[in-house]
Amino acid sequence: MPPPFKIVAVIGKNDAMVLPEMLEQVVSVLRRHGATVLMDTRTAEASHVPPDEALALEALPARADLAVVVGGDGTLLSCARLMAANAVPLVGINLGRLGFLTDIPLAGTEVTLAAILDGRHTEERRVMLAAEVRHGDVVTDRALALNDVVVSRGTHGGMVDMAVEVDGSFVYAMRADGLIVATPTGSTAYALSAHGPIVHPQVAAVILVPVAPHALSNRPIAISDSAVITVTLLKGKDAVAHCDGQAHFPLREGDRVVIRRAAYPVRLLHPEDHDHFAMLRQKLHWGETPEPLG
Amino acid sequence: MPPPFKIVAVIGKNDAMVLPEMLEQVVSVLRRHGATVLMDTRTAEASHVPPDEALALEALPARADLAVVVGGDGTLLSCARLMAANAVPLVGINLGRLGFLTDIPLAGTEVTLAAILDGRHTEERRVMLAAEVRHGDVVTDRALALNDVVVSRGTHGGMVDMAVEVDGSFVYAMRADGLIVATPTGSTAYALSAHGPIVHPQVAAVILVPVAPHALSNRPIAISDSAVITVTLLKGKDAVAHCDGQAHFPLREGDRVVIRRAAYPVRLLHPEDHDHFAMLRQKLHWGETPEPLG
Amino acid sequence: MPPPFKIVAVIGKNDAMVLPEMLEQVVSVLRRHGATVLMDTRTAEASHVPPDEALALEALPARADLAVVVGGDGTLLSCARLMAANAVPLVGINLGRLGFLTDIPLAGTEVTLAAILDGRHTEERRVMLAAEVRHGDVVTDRALALNDVVVSRGTHGGMVDMAVEVDGSFVYAMRADGLIVATPTGSTAYALSAHGPIVHPQVAAVILVPVAPHALSNRPIAISDSAVITVTLLKGKDAVAHCDGQAHFPLREGDRVVIRRAAYPVRLLHPEDHDHFAMLRQKLHWGETPEPLG
Amino acid sequence: MPPPFKIVAVIGKNDAMVLPEMLEQVVSVLRRHGATVLMDTRTAEASHVPPDEALALEALPARADLAVVVGGDGTLLSCARLMAANAVPLVGINLGRLGFLTDIPLAGTEVTLAAILDGRHTEERRVMLAAEVRHGDVVTDRALALNDVVVSRGTHGGMVDMAVEVDGSFVYAMRADGLIVATPTGSTAYALSAHGPIVHPQVAAVILVPVAPHALSNRPIAISDSAVITVTLLKGKDAVAHCDGQAHFPLREGDRVVIRRAAYPVRLLHPEDHDHFAMLRQKLHWGETPEPLG
Repeated sequence: MPPPFKIVAVIGKNDAMVLPEMLEQVVSVLRRHGATVLMDTRTAEASHVPPDEALALEALPARADLAVVVGGDGTLLSCARLMAANAVPLVGINLGRLGFLTDIPLAGTEVTLAAILDGRHTEERRVMLAAEVRHGDVVTDRALALNDVVVSRGTHGGMVDMAVEVDGSFVYAMRADGLIVATPTGSTAYALSAHGPIVHPQVAAVILVPVAPHALSNRPIAISDSAVITVTLLKGKDAVAHCDGQAHFPLREGDRVVIRRAAYPVRLLHPEDHDHFAMLRQKLHWGETPEPLG
Repeated sequence: MPPPFKIVAVIGKNDAMVLPEMLEQVVSVLRRHGATVLMDTRTAEASHVPPDEALALEALPARADLAVVVGGDGTLLSCARLMAANAVPLVGINLGRLGFLTDIPLAGTEVTLAAILDGRHTEERRVMLAAEVRHGDVVTDRALALNDVVVSRGTHGGMVDMAVEVDGSFVYAMRADGLIVATPTGSTAYALSAHGPIVHPQVAAVILVPVAPHALSNRPIAISDSAVITVTLLKGKDAVAHCDGQAHFPLREGDRVVIRRAAYPVRLLHPEDHDHFAMLRQKLHWGETPEPLG
Repeated sequence: MPPPFKIVAVIGKNDAMVLPEMLEQVVSVLRRHGATVLMDTRTAEASHVPPDEALALEALPARADLAVVVGGDGTLLSCARLMAANAVPLVGINLGRLGFLTDIPLAGTEVTLAAILDGRHTEERRVMLAAEVRHGDVVTDRALALNDVVVSRGTHGGMVDMAVEVDGSFVYAMRADGLIVATPTGSTAYALSAHGPIVHPQVAAVILVPVAPHALSNRPIAISDSAVITVTLLKGKDAVAHCDGQAHFPLREGDRVVIRRAAYPVRLLHPEDHDHFAMLRQKLHWGETPEPLG
Repeated sequence: MPPPFKIVAVIGKNDAMVLPEMLEQVVSVLRRHGATVLMDTRTAEASHVPPDEALALEALPARADLAVVVGGDGTLLSCARLMAANAVPLVGINLGRLGFLTDIPLAGTEVTLAAILDGRHTEERRVMLAAEVRHGDVVTDRALALNDVVVSRGTHGGMVDMAVEVDGSFVYAMRADGLIVATPTGSTAYALSAHGPIVHPQVAAVILVPVAPHALSNRPIAISDSAVITVTLLKGKDAVAHCDGQAHFPLREGDRVVIRRAAYPVRLLHPEDHDHFAMLRQKLHWGETPEPLG
């Protein structure tokens, strides 16, 4: 049987010191498995071993059967949005501490990556959000988000006033620093800092998590991920809509941010022994045994 | 067309002062629609108008096409568990403030109930939980819960130590006052007091909400409602498992509480103009407009 | 006995519709008590009755024995900072809903104000904070705050990294949207939205309340109000220090915000029957009786 | 100069495996410093080296100049209450992980204890609470608490309804699992699990922290530690008042728990380099540097 992943894009977070060394390891495993190695131009510049071909980042999705991301969760977020429309599966190798998404540690890269290339992996599909900013009837901006879409106050404007609708039904009006609309993937990112719940990726929900809401009863809400959420900026100087904390769109009063499930999910490949709760335990320092009392 | 609800059980919270008056109204509407009126014996005693038949509470589900509950959310919870196996739909009339579940106000009872009897209603299916207490291999107790199954400390025992598994995978061990496993319905009850998120009834999730956990990282988690959750009591004198705060089962160290989605849902009938978010806004004092600043 | 308040400054929030009518009432009560009425020029413009003298806002503290503020908590905050160095006591009349600080309602203004002018009042001293922004050894900005000093992220910068010291002892380094250093007065303002505790004005403490902290263990801390708090911006593009949400100072990485108790407190006059907890109950919708269960 | 601590009580948590070994070390250091060693009878039984005198635990405070507690925070709590009336200072040696109160680690015991006996120590005074349970006009129970006085629900009773007064002023009525009244010392114990703030021991405050309150606006409050707090049990089957989780008093509806600052503080001795924030950082896993992002 031919290797399932013939053409593999390798994308690195290029300000990391250990990147060249890691790229060498990754490329070596890939070539041993007979794969053609693509890199984006910036990764290629950072790499001591040349790829088979260096392309613009945007050209990779159309060519690759697999994307190997070497970096942190932030790097994987941006690659995931890029790859999703072409359904390219992703593998995340973490250069530092394990991430929520980049779950292959530096140390075990060779063995784990080899196993994945041999087909010993599980695939997980993660929902993304598609956000549109509308000024009147005009869509002024569009972006995808794997973690979250956030409407938040700017530098000087104080809290913002927002109205939230779900499938056209009014939910509430709120004054807050911001409102996070997060996927299950994003529930362990910014939303967790703002007191949102952790949502297992299998749950078909998005969560609305207010940041520092003025009214104490504005608690996090989980709704179906098939719902269309509209956040209208009622009042707020220099408010901004953020997608994954990476794309930023300034908002004017009256603008609406319309958020719905993206047409395609992100495909993440994990080692076969991947255990979501074990990863959460490690990242959140949960106990294997109850914490001993002082 | 014959009336869809020929035999209607009427169940009242019999320590309420206004109950007799309400029962009179309800029975009058039911008889105008040609329905046969059943009551449980205690409701029949409280009623000034006799039902067509008075039965033991437990005998009602097998006979009734519809249950009209006159009381508060607590009364509806116990009736819902009773009626679910026979798929008897329920209507809740609130004697005091509107409830999360009993959404027909005293004032509008006649008109609203008449409309429902005429078939102008929407039906909502709410997931219930089925809990088993296991001592070794023996199931010592079983109960249903529409709101929540709670494992919690007793009067003198200090915090309890618990281990939580989901579908056989270890999640975490925890020291806390208790752990709430709640349905979307229960997310606005005890779980909300313990800092859990609000979950829309359409979301197929249950939430695990620790009460006063010793470790600050033990945050609420939402998981698929198809998961089997096992809570093992590792350590705790006089710990107790509670179902909807109405059934209580003492636990011994080592006992397991196994929780899964019940085989049948609760069927709630609402007026046609029912709006879940409007009900939440009213109950939680959410703003129609952002709260004015001081 | 001569009236204790001979010269009274009246300062209004001049975008309020009902301001002219209120000023007329206030001036009439003041004149009946033989007081000379000063106004800042903007309030004088808005007033239908002319003051005895119109001055620049900044000139009022040196002249006035009392300041009557007609507006909301925001207006009182800015007047309080202005008046504090001259120890001018303040009375707050609220144009809308009662505020935490402006506790004389529109309706009862005449009677209550007359009583205060007659000496029937209680005085409350509220601690203020003095903040300095230091770039290297240079103090680049200074301001007072009655509510809070906040170091927070800007529009695009993502979370900020901060190091906190108390009296020269390192407390923690933190990644968050921001850090609120609040007085007891400020504990019911922004800090409450960010999950801080309510602090009674008699408690000699300031609270450190992180906004959306990345680490779940970064909880609010109350420390002595005699402590000197230093917040160093370790990392953060376009971060800002805010005083009472009214003065804003851009920060560069490495800048320190040094916060200590101001040399003089704010003097608030209340009606004799003023009850701090009654005010909190009203503002926070606390129960006179436990909330009835649904 | 004669050693300041001539007679030293040694009290151990007698179910700890390493206790005998530790006692041997402690006694050896004490004797080298010329101190007379007392033990309570249970510690004496566990000890391989006999004390100079074994007494009833209750007889120790009248005799000792210093108490060395070998155990965890729980052991120190009970010794602190015991020693306070006689103003006996305490040193805490932790047998396991460092505690919030027992801050001398097993490893460094000899050196640190020797330094303290030589007078190289700092003394910290910690406020205690004195609680009285009143049934009508009769005081039925009394106890001290170094951490907290808690009024909480029992095994079967559901939430309890309480009314809270401070210095005779009504604060609020509340439905909750319980209410914690905590000292600064207790702010890092149970109160922290219930979302209370951390309070530095120098702050003269007690905090009221509701456990799972029914109303979302019932937030933690800090009030002056000179206030008298009265918690009246309005409604609650099998409710209980707890002091430090160690003394338990059943409550009947209508009973009042009256809480005030105890007449005398606890005297804790720390090594000279003791750093309260360093201890908090270690116990709460606070960052020395901001947590790296995934």
